[in-house]
Amino acid sequence: MNVIYAIDLIGTFAFAISGALVASKKDFDLFGVIIIAFVTAVGGGMLRDILINAHPINWIGDLNYIWVILSAVVFTFLFKSKIAPLSKTMFLFDTIGIGVFTILGVQKGLNFDLHPFVALTMGMVSAVFGGVIRDVLTNQVPLIFHKEIYASACLLGGLAYLVSSQFIHLEWIPFIIGASTVIIMRSIAVKYQLQLPKIKEDLFGKNK
Amino acid sequence: MNVIYAIDLIGTFAFAISGALVASKKDFDLFGVIIIAFVTAVGGGMLRDILINAHPINWIGDLNYIWVILSAVVFTFLFKSKIAPLSKTMFLFDTIGIGVFTILGVQKGLNFDLHPFVALTMGMVSAVFGGVIRDVLTNQVPLIFHKEIYASACLLGGLAYLVSSQFIHLEWIPFIIGASTVIIMRSIAVKYQLQLPKIKEDLFGKNK
Amino acid sequence: MNVIYAIDLIGTFAFAISGALVASKKDFDLFGVIIIAFVTAVGGGMLRDILINAHPINWIGDLNYIWVILSAVVFTFLFKSKIAPLSKTMFLFDTIGIGVFTILGVQKGLNFDLHPFVALTMGMVSAVFGGVIRDVLTNQVPLIFHKEIYASACLLGGLAYLVSSQFIHLEWIPFIIGASTVIIMRSIAVKYQLQLPKIKEDLFGKNK
Repeated sequence: MNVIYAIDLIGTFAFAISGALVASKKDFDLFGVIIIAFVTAVGGGMLRDILINAHPINWIGDLNYIWVILSAVVFTFLFKSKIAPLSKTMFLFDTIGIGVFTILGVQKGLNFDLHPFVALTMGMVSAVFGGVIRDVLTNQVPLIFHKEIYASACLLGGLAYLVSSQFIHLEWIPFIIGASTVIIMRSIAVKYQLQLPKIKEDLFGKNK
Repeated sequence: MNVIYAIDLIGTFAFAISGALVASKKDFDLFGVIIIAFVTAVGGGMLRDILINAHPINWIGDLNYIWVILSAVVFTFLFKSKIAPLSKTMFLFDTIGIGVFTILGVQKGLNFDLHPFVALTMGMVSAVFGGVIRDVLTNQVPLIFHKEIYASACLLGGLAYLVSSQFIHLEWIPFIIGASTVIIMRSIAVKYQLQLPKIKEDLFGKNK
Repeated sequence: MNVIYAIDLIGTFAFAISGALVASKKDFDLFGVIIIAFVTAVGGGMLRDILINAHPINWIGDLNYIWVILSAVVFTFLFKSKIAPLSKTMFLFDTIGIGVFTILGVQKGLNFDLHPFVALTMGMVSAVFGGVIRDVLTNQVPLIFHKEIYASACLLGGLAYLVSSQFIHLEWIPFIIGASTVIIMRSIAVKYQLQLPKIKEDLFGKNK
């Protein structure tokens, strides 16, 4: 499990950098940048823990998250102009983070005796709602509601985890199956610019 | 109480459709539509349960809410162009839902030993804050803060419930008195376009 | 401690007025004004209590907050055109409120056995996030993320409290040291229009 914890922190680092970049584009000051980096990185897990009554919530129970986020802000401050060229690395970290966050969220839900379907939702909340809170606090329509197959990748990966863990009792194999599903799905979706359908027409007529 | 539970689910269905319609107007994809339908329908009760520490919170403790919401999204997908002409039916369902949500919220507050005044607030939160969360997530100023006597109807109906239950000990009569007050008040307010006053002038002078 | 409780309520009154003024500028109706006054005044403490699982949360456990907020809204309704000329008094109340909210938040965190660093964060959340929720609900980018050294003053004051309480065992002296630090820092920052740095350049190059 130490590998998973390490990946969790790397994902947190990547999420925090993406938050810091969004905030600095919005002309936020250092405090604003830290807060946005913070909610982007731990907001999803925080919301999950509040919803399922898991106290102490993620960053209150483990200070390492705070240190990682502060390091990510310093890193962004120092290397801002160099991060864009690194964007493939960033995308990789970010996507691995999403995969791991999703399955950790599903596991936490199951540990709290939630129905598997609700646990699946918690995996998605963990991976996705940090970005939603970031967008609300920067006064934007959340990206994830109109672009990118991102949450769907989380739901499918979580489902792959749930199904495979019925048959495979070595804990780490379903974990890898689930997280890989998220990572592969997201990479394919971004590469081929896949999008979910929108409700523009219905079965019986077009809307203007 | 089965009738009330049925009305609760019908109200949830109507709220979810109204959320799905708002989200599809905003060009959200299927995932975004589901999330907005979801928070519109159960966001108020979810916030209430978090505030009063009632775990498991509404939709985590009863999966029927999720099924009803998903059905409402499918319904919207199939019949979008037909829903506008149905708007009187929608308004009816929506308004009945608000009435029932309000009184159920007040009752839940009282069951958690809250002061009646706080329980009243919880009735209003249950009925109204789903729409507030919907508006925040779609990046709009919450409708309810500047239009329609809606929350006031909830507060008055909740008050009618509280007062009448002091005198009438058959549970369902105060329930009907309270819910009807909400429904009638809201219908009158919408029909005659009543609005609450705004703070534009004060007793001593006008502001520009 | 009665003096502190009185200052807490005065700060709540000042925060509620500032919320009511923002809401009335946005053309909200009476209900909207009350809600915005409410979240501005108790939103920070409410978020803190949800994060650290301190139930009943602030305004549910002590109805005085609600009465103070409703009085503040009535006051704003009556004297709106007179409040602007009073703005020095308002600033004074507001700033004293921030100082007291911060230290009360830190103390509450420590009473819940949080790590001092997390308790410090809770002090900042208590003082600052009411304004953040106000700005989100009025569809604005939170002021505090791009203007004014405000949260930094809270963090420094909280730190002064934590450090001084290591050496001074009379409870009220570190309280005054901490709260005064917040008040003095904020006054200086506003007077000299100090701002935190923004991430525009980095060590290695400029960004456009």
